[in-house]
Amino acid sequence: MSEAAETLDGWYSLHDFRSLDWPRWKTLSSDEREKAIFEFQQLLDRLNEIQESGNGANALYTIVGQKADFVLWTLRPTLDDIQELETEFNKLTIADYTIPAYSYVAVVELSNYVNGGKAGEDAYENPYVKARLYPTLPKSKYFCFYPMDKRRQGNDNWYMLSMEERRELMKSHGLIGRSYAGKIKQYILGSTGLDDYEWGVALLSDDALQFKKIVYEMRFDEVSARYGDFGSFFVGTLLDEKKLRSFLHVNN
Amino acid sequence: MSEAAETLDGWYSLHDFRSLDWPRWKTLSSDEREKAIFEFQQLLDRLNEIQESGNGANALYTIVGQKADFVLWTLRPTLDDIQELETEFNKLTIADYTIPAYSYVAVVELSNYVNGGKAGEDAYENPYVKARLYPTLPKSKYFCFYPMDKRRQGNDNWYMLSMEERRELMKSHGLIGRSYAGKIKQYILGSTGLDDYEWGVALLSDDALQFKKIVYEMRFDEVSARYGDFGSFFVGTLLDEKKLRSFLHVNN
Amino acid sequence: MSEAAETLDGWYSLHDFRSLDWPRWKTLSSDEREKAIFEFQQLLDRLNEIQESGNGANALYTIVGQKADFVLWTLRPTLDDIQELETEFNKLTIADYTIPAYSYVAVVELSNYVNGGKAGEDAYENPYVKARLYPTLPKSKYFCFYPMDKRRQGNDNWYMLSMEERRELMKSHGLIGRSYAGKIKQYILGSTGLDDYEWGVALLSDDALQFKKIVYEMRFDEVSARYGDFGSFFVGTLLDEKKLRSFLHVNN
Amino acid sequence: MSEAAETLDGWYSLHDFRSLDWPRWKTLSSDEREKAIFEFQQLLDRLNEIQESGNGANALYTIVGQKADFVLWTLRPTLDDIQELETEFNKLTIADYTIPAYSYVAVVELSNYVNGGKAGEDAYENPYVKARLYPTLPKSKYFCFYPMDKRRQGNDNWYMLSMEERRELMKSHGLIGRSYAGKIKQYILGSTGLDDYEWGVALLSDDALQFKKIVYEMRFDEVSARYGDFGSFFVGTLLDEKKLRSFLHVNN
Amino acid sequence: MSEAAETLDGWYSLHDFRSLDWPRWKTLSSDEREKAIFEFQQLLDRLNEIQESGNGANALYTIVGQKADFVLWTLRPTLDDIQELETEFNKLTIADYTIPAYSYVAVVELSNYVNGGKAGEDAYENPYVKARLYPTLPKSKYFCFYPMDKRRQGNDNWYMLSMEERRELMKSHGLIGRSYAGKIKQYILGSTGLDDYEWGVALLSDDALQFKKIVYEMRFDEVSARYGDFGSFFVGTLLDEKKLRSFLHVNN
Repeated sequence: MSEAAETLDGWYSLHDFRSLDWPRWKTLSSDEREKAIFEFQQLLDRLNEIQESGNGANALYTIVGQKADFVLWTLRPTLDDIQELETEFNKLTIADYTIPAYSYVAVVELSNYVNGGKAGEDAYENPYVKARLYPTLPKSKYFCFYPMDKRRQGNDNWYMLSMEERRELMKSHGLIGRSYAGKIKQYILGSTGLDDYEWGVALLSDDALQFKKIVYEMRFDEVSARYGDFGSFFVGTLLDEKKLRSFLHVNN
Repeated sequence: MSEAAETLDGWYSLHDFRSLDWPRWKTLSSDEREKAIFEFQQLLDRLNEIQESGNGANALYTIVGQKADFVLWTLRPTLDDIQELETEFNKLTIADYTIPAYSYVAVVELSNYVNGGKAGEDAYENPYVKARLYPTLPKSKYFCFYPMDKRRQGNDNWYMLSMEERRELMKSHGLIGRSYAGKIKQYILGSTGLDDYEWGVALLSDDALQFKKIVYEMRFDEVSARYGDFGSFFVGTLLDEKKLRSFLHVNN
Repeated sequence: MSEAAETLDGWYSLHDFRSLDWPRWKTLSSDEREKAIFEFQQLLDRLNEIQESGNGANALYTIVGQKADFVLWTLRPTLDDIQELETEFNKLTIADYTIPAYSYVAVVELSNYVNGGKAGEDAYENPYVKARLYPTLPKSKYFCFYPMDKRRQGNDNWYMLSMEERRELMKSHGLIGRSYAGKIKQYILGSTGLDDYEWGVALLSDDALQFKKIVYEMRFDEVSARYGDFGSFFVGTLLDEKKLRSFLHVNN
Repeated sequence: MSEAAETLDGWYSLHDFRSLDWPRWKTLSSDEREKAIFEFQQLLDRLNEIQESGNGANALYTIVGQKADFVLWTLRPTLDDIQELETEFNKLTIADYTIPAYSYVAVVELSNYVNGGKAGEDAYENPYVKARLYPTLPKSKYFCFYPMDKRRQGNDNWYMLSMEERRELMKSHGLIGRSYAGKIKQYILGSTGLDDYEWGVALLSDDALQFKKIVYEMRFDEVSARYGDFGSFFVGTLLDEKKLRSFLHVNN
Repeated sequence: MSEAAETLDGWYSLHDFRSLDWPRWKTLSSDEREKAIFEFQQLLDRLNEIQESGNGANALYTIVGQKADFVLWTLRPTLDDIQELETEFNKLTIADYTIPAYSYVAVVELSNYVNGGKAGEDAYENPYVKARLYPTLPKSKYFCFYPMDKRRQGNDNWYMLSMEERRELMKSHGLIGRSYAGKIKQYILGSTGLDDYEWGVALLSDDALQFKKIVYEMRFDEVSARYGDFGSFFVGTLLDEKKLRSFLHVNN
């Protein structure tokens, strides 16, 4: 048996990807749409208050292409919080004009590969660790999300490597990541036992091209090249209050 | 030919995952919704009576994310019981406002890896075995379910291993499981010949993070690392009578 | 080139799995539903007459879980018969309240592995062979169906084995099958060139647990362990005339 | 780099598989249905005229099972012809009562494995080649279609074999095919770069069992055993004008 | 760690594949359809103006078969431009009569395999490079699109090859591509980190058969044979203003 890397676990995370049912959305009167947008904005305002109080975080982005129209990403202390928020959204009027497109349930995670093995109870008091596990999300212009597994296939079986081998491999992987510091904010979400892949990765940046650059460069790193299995990639643009209004606006 | 491990088989099990059709559910009047909830609660009450009489067990949980909105899990002595319950649910008014999301048919199982080879007719009289095969489900706060196969691929073929090799591998696997005793209740559901995977695993816990911890830790164990193929993971929160009411409540 | 095993081919077979559209079915008046059930029962009566005349066979079972609500299985002499029956069903009123869930087209088959190589024209006159190729289906309480391929992957390539190797492997496989005689009736349906898998397997039994036992035991046999690729498994309970009525009955 | 086999390319081919939306089809009045059938028959008549003029070919068959209800197969000189026909069908009334089920775009092909390497401009003047590339479709009773790839996986990589090895393998493959001459008409449709598989194969026969026999026998041939990856199989029965009427007829 | 090839990145690209909801489209009155087509044509006119100004490019093609009815392909400087265009399309009346079929998000890309390693800031001033990264799309008669990955599987792992090996392999690959110059215009779209495959390939030609020829010939090249994993292939015909009118025209 190979030794599991201990993880530090922070907030629960839900990515809720939705498509807008445009034909039905357009059938609403201007007033009905206004009301639905106002109600949605009220929920977003409450989420922003929670974020300001340090009890969670959230972000709203469009998704480019047909996979979804937007994603609401929320970070909260418990699975119950996440469930309640999801239910609250479903009860909004605007939810009736959306079609579920994809979702991802996970927990913000720091592995002790990164942490130099200093995992443990004290670690949770470390300000750097705290900032990573309970993050404030910047209002970056662009969003990227993808889920991933570590491969277990024939000779390319991550989980059969020794702790030492994995640590060595993760080190070079981390170096690439660090070379994008300042350009990309990276959020590692552990989801083994919680959703279909083992991790979700969320990236925020003011330059969408950086998403392509970092994922492409990492693919040549052995950790991805031999051991990475990737799900769907979702990219989009920031939906602040003003853009949300124009996004949802319809002439009729 | 490799020797099959004998299994002890208990109650039949059905996981019935459903999404709520929120837009249509909201079109009902308050009275119609109340009536539908009341009728559903009556079915749950009957299930609880069966549970108290020792002739079955049941649990109701939300599912976080878009895979489903809730799961009704029932354990009963025969496949006919399971079929009748499913039909009974489908005839409820609330069923008309749900969308089938996923289901799993299986039998509660104890393998003789765990049992030390003491499988046989007498085993069914063993109180420990009985408690495992015909379990009472605790009202734990969180739920996790996933189906899985033992891999048959190239050199990683579980079914080509000798009984001795499999027993040895399962022993270390069992040790991890046991280290979570008190934190997680684990239910092994055999489904070879009954549903698409060979097993379903249901976990109950008062700490949702334990689902992530146990599944992650086990993944480094050879049984999972080389021989485990996993399906979708579903997690959720307890829906007791009060929470069910607030979950289904709509302002209008 | 490896030598193909000759097969003896009997009746054409169609498994027609359907989900009931319960919400729409409930909108019918009692009279409309009665009429639709009566019409369906008339078709089943005609099928039973064909069965009694020895020109075909049929069975109707529920399917447990969300994969389907019921399956109508029919065996007939020609592909045209199968097509006509399917069209006839589609023209019934009840068909308008069903949703296609899955179907399987095949031919009842005996391979000369089993037959000891005695395939040939005369074989069709052998009473044992006739009873296998043109079977009467018993009113067993439980039903199981799954499609399967023989694997062609790397070193596990069934079709690259010699006739002798395949015959040897099938012999031990057949022994397991025979040990379930009296408990399970097994129907092998060849579908290479007719549907997506190479075979369909239908099992009938008065003890649903035997489906789990036989498929699990066989999985340790090299034929399945190394060479079997399985599709979805469907299990259900007998729908005789009386049970069909109560299954389709709705209070309103 | 391995040498590609040159191909001779004939007519473009479209298989358009459709399910009939029976519940909606039944809601039409007899007159409306008659009109829709008449309009459809007019299109089929025009296609038959094109066929008689030697500028194309077409066939209409039911599909047994739930994959589709019927397939309209058309062969025409250009991709524009195929596109126009598809649009023409979509504008028919009957199209509004069908649900797209599957389609396949390809080009009738002769490879120079078969052709003994005599590919080239002159080949198109060869009467045998012409008859193959611009075929007349017989009114055979049964239809079979499946798409396929040549495998590129580990040691089983068709495209890494030398021209000589491929030619040798194809020779034995061709011998099986030829042994079915008189029983089955075989149409090879090249679709690399045009649709999701590399080839589509269409078979016509007056004995549906021959589809099972040829595909099964070929599976033991190394070309299929090691190098064939198959998609879905569709089989059905001839829909001539009279059968089309009875197929689409509804009592009401 | 293997060295990543630097890429030169041009315009963002969106392929938006749509099916027309023909039955609903036909329910519109002639006037309503005319208005919807006029509004769509206005958007296309604005796109053409952008193209003429050198700030983007666009193309509109039918898609043959059931995968989609048409594709709108747009190239623009930023991800925001792409998002806005998508939203603008969704707000058109005609969009309400389409069904999303597939989409692809990417960036026009030149790799330094092709570029002889001369990537860098200056390269963007090279006229040849500029013409490739910010292309004008010709009004070719036929369109082809497919997404692809470089394989990472066992011994066939592109990303574990050295830069030298990859450059060598790409050289022969490029030679095939160049032999089609004049017959096919080829557009390489990098999508690692942006969409589900690593690249999208768009081809334009006045001879649809060339799509089959180039993709087939390349498949024997080691880059494709051992290292290429392909998604779906979409082919279609040019929809200029006149053809768009006749394509969308309905008699009623």
